Amino acid sequence: MGSPASVEIIEVGTRDGLQMEPVFVDTKTKIELINGLTGAGIRHIEATSFVSPRAVPQLKDAADVLAGINRPAGSIFSVLTPNTKGVERAIAAKADEIIVFLSGSESHNQKNLNRSIDRSLEDVSAIAQCVEGVEIQKKGAIACSFGCPFEGDVELDTLKRIAGHFHSAGFRSLTLGDTTGMATPGLVERTVSALRDAFPEMRLTLHFHNTRGIGLVNVVAGLNAGVDSYESSLGGLGGCPFAPGASGNICTEDLVYLLNEMGIDTGIDLGRLIDVALRMEAVLGRSLPGQVMKAGPRSRLHEYESALRATG
Amino acid sequence: MGSPASVEIIEVGTRDGLQMEPVFVDTKTKIELINGLTGAGIRHIEATSFVSPRAVPQLKDAADVLAGINRPAGSIFSVLTPNTKGVERAIAAKADEIIVFLSGSESHNQKNLNRSIDRSLEDVSAIAQCVEGVEIQKKGAIACSFGCPFEGDVELDTLKRIAGHFHSAGFRSLTLGDTTGMATPGLVERTVSALRDAFPEMRLTLHFHNTRGIGLVNVVAGLNAGVDSYESSLGGLGGCPFAPGASGNICTEDLVYLLNEMGIDTGIDLGRLIDVALRMEAVLGRSLPGQVMKAGPRSRLHEYESALRATG
Repeated sequence: MGSPASVEIIEVGTRDGLQMEPVFVDTKTKIELINGLTGAGIRHIEATSFVSPRAVPQLKDAADVLAGINRPAGSIFSVLTPNTKGVERAIAAKADEIIVFLSGSESHNQKNLNRSIDRSLEDVSAIAQCVEGVEIQKKGAIACSFGCPFEGDVELDTLKRIAGHFHSAGFRSLTLGDTTGMATPGLVERTVSALRDAFPEMRLTLHFHNTRGIGLVNVVAGLNAGVDSYESSLGGLGGCPFAPGASGNICTEDLVYLLNEMGIDTGIDLGRLIDVALRMEAVLGRSLPGQVMKAGPRSRLHEYESALRATG
Repeated sequence: MGSPASVEIIEVGTRDGLQMEPVFVDTKTKIELINGLTGAGIRHIEATSFVSPRAVPQLKDAADVLAGINRPAGSIFSVLTPNTKGVERAIAAKADEIIVFLSGSESHNQKNLNRSIDRSLEDVSAIAQCVEGVEIQKKGAIACSFGCPFEGDVELDTLKRIAGHFHSAGFRSLTLGDTTGMATPGLVERTVSALRDAFPEMRLTLHFHNTRGIGLVNVVAGLNAGVDSYESSLGGLGGCPFAPGASGNICTEDLVYLLNEMGIDTGIDLGRLIDVALRMEAVLGRSLPGQVMKAGPRSRLHEYESALRATG
C-alpha cells in the first residue's frame, strides 16, 4: 500500500503525557494548553482520564478541564475510561469519545489493571452496554500490542482475540499501543496487516513510544501499511517506567514535521504547535525530548554573520 | 531497490562527537574507548582529526591515539584531514584512510573552511597528489549535502560538481553529510539516486544528524535507496551549533538496534556496544541522547515482581 495522503494526529500529551507528572498542573493551565493545541489545528485530543483521583491525582480535574476548553467544530475530545463509573463521569462531562483499554499480555494487564485479560474483556462488554444509545464514540485500545516488558513477544492470536471482542461489542476504532517501545518496522507491518485482514472495517490507530529511538521509523512502517491515524505527545512528554531517562511517547512536533516533509497533510500549523510545546516546557520547568521544538523546521535559516563556527 | 543484507557502520564518536567537548579527554581514555568499539565488532572508525591543535585542542593527541589503539585485522581507522599538512601527519601516524571534506554550500564552506568551494576543490586536488603512491585510502565528504543553515536547499548540480571533482581526483568513496539535520526521506532518495546515476562506481556513505528527530527515518530512506554505509556516533554524542539542546549525530547503538531488528547484519555486538556508550557517558559525566543505552534492546525483559506500576 502507498502512504495515505492525509493523516489524523491524536494528541495525548495532557493525558498520557501529564499523568505521571508529580506536580499538579492547574486546571487553567491545562485548558490553556489544550486550547493552544486546537488553535494549532489539532482536532483530536485525548484530553484527560476518568480514573480514580487517588490513583492519578494529576487528572482529578478531568470534568473541569472538559468544561473549560474551546470546542472548535469537528473536534473530538477523547477520555480514558477504565470502568463503567469512569464512563458515566465521561458522559456527564460531555466527552466526545471514550477509550477503553486492556493489555495484550496477561502479566501487563495484571500489573496495570489488576485482573486477567478475560475479566477485562467482560469490562469491555459492560462498558459497551453502558453507552448503548448514548451519543458518544467509543474506541478500544490494546496496550503492549508490540511486546510486553515481562513476557516479550505478544501473540498475534491474542491481539486478534481482543480485537474481535471489541468488534463484537460494537467498536469500530482500535488503537494499538506500543506501551514500552518494543515495536519494530517489520512487526508493525505484520501486525497491522493481520488485524486489517481479520477486521477490515476497524479503523486502526498506532501509538508508538520512542523508548528505543525508532518511534518515527515505526510511524513510517505504519504509513507504508496504510495506517492514517497516529497518537503522539506534545514535546514527547511522558516516560517509560522501565527505562529511566529514555523517551516515552513519540513527539507531536517531530511527527508533524516528518509528515509535512513527506507531503502528507495533517491540517496542523507546525509553528503554532511548537509554541504550545515550548509553553509545556515552561509549565513543567524542564526540557522535553522534542527535537523540532529546539531546532525548528529545516526552513528555519540562520543569519550568516551571527552564526557560530560550524565544524565538519 | 531492496535494503542491503549487511551494512557498514562507521563510528565517528571520538572525532565528530568529541571535537566540541570543552574538557580534554585524556589520550589513554580515548584509546580505551576506541578499543572498546573494536571489541564490540566495529571495524571502521573515524578516530580523530589532523587539524590544527589550536583550532581543535580536544584532538591534539591524534598521532598518539593512532599509535596506542589495537588494530584488529580488517579494521579501518579514518582521520579527518583539512589540508596537505594534515595529510602528511596522517600518513606518518599510519592512518588507514584520510577524509577530505568541503561543504555543498558556499556560505557554509566560507564559515567552516574560510574559502570558496572552488578553492576547496583545488585543495582536494593537492591532497590527491600528496597521497599518490602512498598506501592509504581516501574518502571525500560533502558537508551540508541535504541543506545549508544559511542558504536552505543545496542544489543537486553543486553536489554533482563536487562529487565529479572528487571522482576525477581518484576518490571512489564519498560521504554525504547532513551537517545540521536538514535531510528528509524524499531528499535522501532523490540525492542518492542522482549521485549514483552520475557516478555509479562511487561508494556512498550517509552521515545523518538527529537534529529534527528523523535521523533514523532518513537511514531507512537510505536503505531503501540501496546505501550500505552509514556514519553514527556512540551515544549520539555531538551537537548542532545552530540548535542548542537538540541532538547531533544519530546514535550508533540505536542504529545497530534498528538494523538488527530489520534483519540487516552489522557484525556488531549490541550489548558490548552499549557498555562502551555507558563508559562514554561516565567519561563525560553527563547523559547522552542515545535511547537503547538506557532501555536496552526489546529483548531485555523485566521481572514482574520488581516492576514499577505501568500505566496506559
